[in-house]
Amino acid sequence: MDHTPPLRETGYDLRQRIRRSAWTRTTEGLAPGYVQANLAILPRALAPDFQRFCALNPKPCPLLASSEPGDPALPGLGRDIDIRTDVPRYRVWRAGELVEEVEDISALWRDDLVTFAIGCSHSFEEPMLADGLRLRHIERGHPVSVYYSSIPCVPSGVFHGPMAVSMRPFRPADAIRAIQITSRFPAVHGAPVHLGHPEQIGIQDLAKVDDGHPTEVMPDEIPLFWGCGVTPQTVVRASRPEFCITHAPGHMLVTDLLNSRLSVF
Amino acid sequence: MDHTPPLRETGYDLRQRIRRSAWTRTTEGLAPGYVQANLAILPRALAPDFQRFCALNPKPCPLLASSEPGDPALPGLGRDIDIRTDVPRYRVWRAGELVEEVEDISALWRDDLVTFAIGCSHSFEEPMLADGLRLRHIERGHPVSVYYSSIPCVPSGVFHGPMAVSMRPFRPADAIRAIQITSRFPAVHGAPVHLGHPEQIGIQDLAKVDDGHPTEVMPDEIPLFWGCGVTPQTVVRASRPEFCITHAPGHMLVTDLLNSRLSVF
Repeated sequence: MDHTPPLRETGYDLRQRIRRSAWTRTTEGLAPGYVQANLAILPRALAPDFQRFCALNPKPCPLLASSEPGDPALPGLGRDIDIRTDVPRYRVWRAGELVEEVEDISALWRDDLVTFAIGCSHSFEEPMLADGLRLRHIERGHPVSVYYSSIPCVPSGVFHGPMAVSMRPFRPADAIRAIQITSRFPAVHGAPVHLGHPEQIGIQDLAKVDDGHPTEVMPDEIPLFWGCGVTPQTVVRASRPEFCITHAPGHMLVTDLLNSRLSVF
Repeated sequence: MDHTPPLRETGYDLRQRIRRSAWTRTTEGLAPGYVQANLAILPRALAPDFQRFCALNPKPCPLLASSEPGDPALPGLGRDIDIRTDVPRYRVWRAGELVEEVEDISALWRDDLVTFAIGCSHSFEEPMLADGLRLRHIERGHPVSVYYSSIPCVPSGVFHGPMAVSMRPFRPADAIRAIQITSRFPAVHGAPVHLGHPEQIGIQDLAKVDDGHPTEVMPDEIPLFWGCGVTPQTVVRASRPEFCITHAPGHMLVTDLLNSRLSVF
């Protein structure tokens, strides 16, 4: 297996490598410039409720696209996408329980499944890095810190649950800059939902993450919290739909869209 | 003396009341919608250094206009402005010492004086209030809290000194919104320069203000700090120019420009 990506790999190129199982790990930092997406795949009967759930909760669940029932393509996001094979790792959920992680969902596919693709923080981390901001979880080579906050999502039909948030620490002037940069990207979580007082959103100990990996916060820093695309998974745990497939954290759908085109100004 | 302003008073109307000494108090909340300005009036020999000082320090000293030497008009800021009479209260400085406060500077005018008009936070407080944010110093009817920070201004010729900052406390979500709103107004201090760790910018005790009035910060709030138009006065104290006239804090030049026109998007 060749793990070396070509120079200036596109989203399309990377999807082809993933499809033929030449890449099965996280997509963080790969195909730079291309939008990556969180996934939730649900039966058609639940799709209208979930579509509305995303509309009601744009900070954690900014919807980039949804598919026709049974159709594994997402033509609005990229050429020749097959959602059954083009994500490096999936999680399979039954009645709200994570039952397995797999690298291909062809055997699980049903003609009533609808795919939802949700914006991902990888898109706003890229302009932060380009601006000279430092992201500790990337420098230390571990996943971002994710917490299940006490902020309730706005419910829609059967779907309800807490907002998952990702945390990145910054010194004060960089925190202000990070808010400015991410405000330009409402399609990928946008501005933070909280800063500075984790206990106000139900986080008593920053060292105890609910997903990802703990990130050290220095005494001169402020923790900033963004709505996180792991939220559909906290919602699936809380709402217990009969069947759902999501991406595994960090293992995203890589699209043909350019991050810079998501900026609103 | 009639202290009742007309309904929907314009900047021009208010200047006329100030000129005839019918208003001698602060301009906060008056002529809503119109840009108010901080003032520094300096001898022509010092003007090039100060012009460059403003350009080098746009957060505390965003320059809206400067005059021709000896000319008390500022045609770029409003109709028929006479800077000698149209500000309710002035401070007179000699060799860096505040020597008097007066309501008219006609007797002090010299044909070598140059006026600098600098953006004022009243312009960004208006859209914050319109957005539903609460400003405690306004609700409690006292001036904003001003501190002389340890952040050095970039020097220019004889001019040097610490940046004065104004502080407003917010709960976290409102702090994020306040950063977004003020980022749209770079001509009037723009985004905060600091948040959350006052000791990092030389402020050991928020109860000890250097100008204005202390503002209570609740345990669930974050203090945000903006560059402040009082900075020219801290710079005059530090740099000791032979002569300078400024406005008295809160007693601003009210212009014919509209606040909303200062928004960059």
